[in-house]
Amino acid sequence: MNDTDDTDDANAGVAQEVSAVLAANAALYDAFESADLDLMQAVWLNGAHAEDVICVHPGWPALRGRGQVLRSWVMIMANTSSISFVLTDVDATVDGEVAVVTCVENILTGMPEVAEPMPLLGSAGLSGGRMSATNVFRHTDTGWRLWVHHSSPVLSAEVSEQ
Amino acid sequence: MNDTDDTDDANAGVAQEVSAVLAANAALYDAFESADLDLMQAVWLNGAHAEDVICVHPGWPALRGRGQVLRSWVMIMANTSSISFVLTDVDATVDGEVAVVTCVENILTGMPEVAEPMPLLGSAGLSGGRMSATNVFRHTDTGWRLWVHHSSPVLSAEVSEQ
Repeated sequence: MNDTDDTDDANAGVAQEVSAVLAANAALYDAFESADLDLMQAVWLNGAHAEDVICVHPGWPALRGRGQVLRSWVMIMANTSSISFVLTDVDATVDGEVAVVTCVENILTGMPEVAEPMPLLGSAGLSGGRMSATNVFRHTDTGWRLWVHHSSPVLSAEVSEQ
Repeated sequence: MNDTDDTDDANAGVAQEVSAVLAANAALYDAFESADLDLMQAVWLNGAHAEDVICVHPGWPALRGRGQVLRSWVMIMANTSSISFVLTDVDATVDGEVAVVTCVENILTGMPEVAEPMPLLGSAGLSGGRMSATNVFRHTDTGWRLWVHHSSPVLSAEVSEQ
């Protein structure tokens, strides 16, 4: 008779964890949008797992280790005048202590004023793009922390449709 | 006095698991090189985890679910006349039931005979490229199986040096 209750409890527990993982995922993009290094530091795994973190920025080889990864974010955020993300196709799987989120990063970046205005964008233009991101999180005493981030350009919206 | 022995045992156990993970990682590329669909099917998670598998091919959005992922490999292998991988920068982390491998895929693909020979490559040319791959494995009763594969082009060898 308790099976249904147990299943309901389990489902509620999973839904709660998925919510927590999605919040951790959103925090990565909040940190980037607001160039908030403190938040970016809080997003990533630390402590015993600090050397395990992996980050692949679009077009980059893999970076390993918290120090190298955070330095890359400092450099990227310092060189981005403004950036906004709209996440679509967000999908999360929680499996014990590990969770994987995939999403499409729809990006709008502001470009600095340029001497030669581009016909369509004006002198201070906007540039957009679509990236496919895979984010792996690990559960810790202080919640879900980012273990792996891999982001890469989507070359065509139609390619998955064959 | 047993601490050292215990540590040695633990280290030997980790080294053994790392070897097993690296073998599973190599099997993915063996399957692609030999267009061996049976091996490709064996590489990926199955059973209760079949719907969790994630694959991001270079330039593609994420595919989810074993069926969709394996269909993509059938299509890609059918459209590749020959391909060879040399893996470099292979790095594996095993953390309990989950392992992450990063590597650079140095790729040489054969191109079909073309009507207009290219100056440097001749009429049946070779094309190369470098991809950054993140491969996440889960331990199962039948060994390490691929959970997530994300591969994307490396645009510059120098970018990580900054």
